[in-house]
Amino acid sequence: MKQCIGIDVGGTTIKFGLFFEDGRLVKKWEIPTRTGGRKEKLYQDIASSVHKELAAGGMTARELAGIGVGIPGPVLPDGRIGGLVNLGIHELNLNAELPPYLDGVKVSAANDANAAALGEIWQGGGKDFQSMVLLTLGTGVGCGVIVNGRLITGSFGMGGELGHIIMNPHETEACNCGGKGCLEQYTSATGIARMARRQLAACEMPSSLRAVSGLTARDVLDAAKAGDALAAEIVDKCMRYLGLAMAYVSHMTDPECFVIGGGVSRAGEYLLEVIRRHYESFMHIQKAQAELRLATLGNDAGIYGAARLILEK
Amino acid sequence: MKQCIGIDVGGTTIKFGLFFEDGRLVKKWEIPTRTGGRKEKLYQDIASSVHKELAAGGMTARELAGIGVGIPGPVLPDGRIGGLVNLGIHELNLNAELPPYLDGVKVSAANDANAAALGEIWQGGGKDFQSMVLLTLGTGVGCGVIVNGRLITGSFGMGGELGHIIMNPHETEACNCGGKGCLEQYTSATGIARMARRQLAACEMPSSLRAVSGLTARDVLDAAKAGDALAAEIVDKCMRYLGLAMAYVSHMTDPECFVIGGGVSRAGEYLLEVIRRHYESFMHIQKAQAELRLATLGNDAGIYGAARLILEK
Repeated sequence: MKQCIGIDVGGTTIKFGLFFEDGRLVKKWEIPTRTGGRKEKLYQDIASSVHKELAAGGMTARELAGIGVGIPGPVLPDGRIGGLVNLGIHELNLNAELPPYLDGVKVSAANDANAAALGEIWQGGGKDFQSMVLLTLGTGVGCGVIVNGRLITGSFGMGGELGHIIMNPHETEACNCGGKGCLEQYTSATGIARMARRQLAACEMPSSLRAVSGLTARDVLDAAKAGDALAAEIVDKCMRYLGLAMAYVSHMTDPECFVIGGGVSRAGEYLLEVIRRHYESFMHIQKAQAELRLATLGNDAGIYGAARLILEK
Repeated sequence: MKQCIGIDVGGTTIKFGLFFEDGRLVKKWEIPTRTGGRKEKLYQDIASSVHKELAAGGMTARELAGIGVGIPGPVLPDGRIGGLVNLGIHELNLNAELPPYLDGVKVSAANDANAAALGEIWQGGGKDFQSMVLLTLGTGVGCGVIVNGRLITGSFGMGGELGHIIMNPHETEACNCGGKGCLEQYTSATGIARMARRQLAACEMPSSLRAVSGLTARDVLDAAKAGDALAAEIVDKCMRYLGLAMAYVSHMTDPECFVIGGGVSRAGEYLLEVIRRHYESFMHIQKAQAELRLATLGNDAGIYGAARLILEK
């Protein structure tokens, strides 16, 4: 059976996974991300790490089925990538530019959140389904939309950018994207902490959160699970936006399943219950039928999905 | 070249179109819808009309590439249809049950709004594109989502049911679906008239609309185009919801183009301009790039799309 490599390019580390085509992970490793703003440096670092690790197993890049890469930016249908803001790189095309560094092996790039969705449907929380939407609640809100096993990458690289739909046009604080009222401002880890600070300042209700300094989403979720009424109210308010956004998705691509991942999802069944209640409340022409599941691959979703990218072509 | 038939089953008439596989319409005709709540009657009426019209041209059903049918209800991936509320029919499966009436010809059914989208991308306003979303602003709001030439029908028959996403959770009046604040309540012809009545009652602003009895969306749009400030304000308010919903779509399936159809779209470029302005205002991570076009097939979109259904399998 052939092997392939999935690569997840992040702002601080580049993760690699060597897989069998049936999804079994052979080994994984990582290197620090150091581009100095030059894409050639990124390509060289990736290539030398791949060559080295393959050589250790007596392999060459030529033997691979291909290499998939998840990157933190929008990928156009022709492979062009406008820029990777966090890496200080502009104008690149991994599909065309990376192969010369790797014995001409086939390369396929996708947005990292989209790749993660492919990973979760291949070997993770969405394994039983053909149509799935992954929502990753971390620093931001990542999203990947899969319909009949295929990723919806979009005409302009905006497929599954659900984190930036405007849920509350009355919001006064701005999102990183410049918009006001984005889903991410309420349902990311950062967003939950922001809403908690705001709510604590706006009312006098007693709460264990008032004693916490450097409040995080985890503090809020832990307090809510422990019975803190104000914390529960905050979680409820935030997840109401997520439930509404999921109802939007159900009226558009109508997935069999939503998979919830990212740091926030560590709150587990408690969180799913809150999300499910709101999601169902926004479905009227039909009862809500999509299942809600927790992601299972954690930080490895990206390398799994990147590897899967190569196999789906 | 083979021929195929597209059928659009409506509440009052059933429309038929005989097409060449390249999209040329050979002839079209219609019959009244009279089911008496029995699906067998629907099948018999369709079959005898098809046999009769084919016979007139010296053809038999056996020679067809197939028959596509657009129906006013949700179609599940396996072809099952829970019910056609407007026709008083429950539990049917045209793909399986209609062929025996038509010499065993292949039948493929889809939701009528989805079929219309296929029609517009095949031979109408979306002809230049591969990924398109049709929004039909009529009595209700119909929607069909096409990605890379394929219809997104959904896991539970809810693909492209955009008319019923909740845009305004503060709405007090109920939609037909039972929800409150659905897109349809603001951007359908009925919705525009409703918003106009409401706005006229809520303010003292002078307007030519105050003299109109039995106010329709057309009155509102005509007045807005003629410079009536209150009418323009109403159109603006309604289309703001549509622009926001379109931004949601762009963050999810990211189409190359939106095609606007239905009676309301007769307001033409004026309407597109209002919609475009709002749509663009809700796009932040990237500038709005999808084109806005008017539908061109009118009431024939359904038969075109139904015919196309057969060819895409």
